[in-house]
Amino acid sequence: MPEPETGLVCTERTPRVVTARKLLRRAGRERAGRFLAEGSQAVDAALAAAGDGGGRVYELFATAEALGHHPGLERTARDLGVPVTLVTERAAAALSETVTPQGLIAVCGLLHVSVETALAGTPTLVVMLVEAADPGNVGALIRVADAAGADAVILAGDGCDPHNGKSVRASAGSVFHLPLAPVRDVPSALTECRRRGLRLLAATAGGELDLDTAAEDGTLAAPSAWLFGNEAHGLPGDVTGAADHRVSVPIHGRAESLNLATAAAVCVYASARAQRRERGRGGALS
Amino acid sequence: MPEPETGLVCTERTPRVVTARKLLRRAGRERAGRFLAEGSQAVDAALAAAGDGGGRVYELFATAEALGHHPGLERTARDLGVPVTLVTERAAAALSETVTPQGLIAVCGLLHVSVETALAGTPTLVVMLVEAADPGNVGALIRVADAAGADAVILAGDGCDPHNGKSVRASAGSVFHLPLAPVRDVPSALTECRRRGLRLLAATAGGELDLDTAAEDGTLAAPSAWLFGNEAHGLPGDVTGAADHRVSVPIHGRAESLNLATAAAVCVYASARAQRRERGRGGALS
Repeated sequence: MPEPETGLVCTERTPRVVTARKLLRRAGRERAGRFLAEGSQAVDAALAAAGDGGGRVYELFATAEALGHHPGLERTARDLGVPVTLVTERAAAALSETVTPQGLIAVCGLLHVSVETALAGTPTLVVMLVEAADPGNVGALIRVADAAGADAVILAGDGCDPHNGKSVRASAGSVFHLPLAPVRDVPSALTECRRRGLRLLAATAGGELDLDTAAEDGTLAAPSAWLFGNEAHGLPGDVTGAADHRVSVPIHGRAESLNLATAAAVCVYASARAQRRERGRGGALS
Repeated sequence: MPEPETGLVCTERTPRVVTARKLLRRAGRERAGRFLAEGSQAVDAALAAAGDGGGRVYELFATAEALGHHPGLERTARDLGVPVTLVTERAAAALSETVTPQGLIAVCGLLHVSVETALAGTPTLVVMLVEAADPGNVGALIRVADAAGADAVILAGDGCDPHNGKSVRASAGSVFHLPLAPVRDVPSALTECRRRGLRLLAATAGGELDLDTAAEDGTLAAPSAWLFGNEAHGLPGDVTGAADHRVSVPIHGRAESLNLATAAAVCVYASARAQRRERGRGGALS
């Protein structure tokens, strides 16, 4: 079937839509070097990143209704040289993993950078996730790292792909805001963080340091990489052992633990606050 | 169809299973005054609460396999006078809302208490969620409140039911750990918090106080009730206006915001730390 001419509305059977659907799976993304960002928040963030030279958007699929809801989006895309392809509701649904598709899907270049690139400059706050299994958690963690002003997120080990649709959605646009570095070899990632002058803080239950103590005694004021593990199994023992400090979020009530994203939020914000206070004092980070 | 005798394995058509299934819906829970807690973590927490007099468990449905995986559970239940009903895998699945049912479901009494009961004693840290829409968020927030040592969670307005299966699962047992008080009338809940000497802190973007400033200037050291709004719409304007302070979690990066549970974790842990520090100094809370 020939592809419809520009200006016509593509259906779920149009070849470019069929091709884009393959990006819903990790293998398809890796083969094409592209992924899908769905919904207005993600599309806005993707276009803004492309405008800043921080990412590439190859195409925007949109329903007529969605373009009507987001005036200016089509212009923004065209100004960036991003072709806008009108699709039917069914085609938008075929490109979506959500129950109520928003009718806006950007085809973006993978956001991966190397650990060296992610840690370029003088990083002071880095988040490393080791063997992450759940894409929703990965996205939530990237959002937390972004909000707390972290310099980069390193995804170490055999974790899930941050370009997964659930991860992109949970990040609320943050996948486009800071460098994401996937790295298979965990020890090399730890070495690179150390080489950059980052103290390694393993977030773990039963650590020798309580987060509040670490905040008070100056530990958190130093440039740091926080290490978080898989929600079910925590950090691998060798990673915990290799860290400079093992830090626990205090549990004051009867909960066994916090979930990954909330624990990370408490840890990373405690570091951001300690570092900013140190800078305000004209300390080592200023 | 007559109910099988004790000792037989119940199917999804056995009347007591059919009756319990009605608890999957809110109307069924409200009619019966009961709800379902699924999975070993929730069932353990339910039985522990019942043992402490803090909740009631009416019955435990379990597959033979699940009982095999959790030796001691049957004894714990029987010691508490909780009947254990063997069910088929299909019956367990019928009582479950998860993709991979664990084969353990406790029928529990609703956990509601009045705001007055929830705030009895000398509360120093309370979490109030106004017009919560998403049960996963409600459960995550209850878990955060529990971990941070909050005295109670108040669910104000027309929010979702904390006894919803998703909420119970997201709370990871915490629904059984601290008083939960639903209340329709938001102003009366605010008044009751004030009457108890709690400072009202509205978590809101663009508040006049930054969380770090509030931590430094002593605001957070006072007994407080944190007010959180619906994830999409935030707090209603009259609630924000009625609070003593409007406090923002600082966004240091390019994220627009944090999600509800992570924002709450940062806020409530900041209060817990400030209050503990104040107590350590022999301050007003000691």
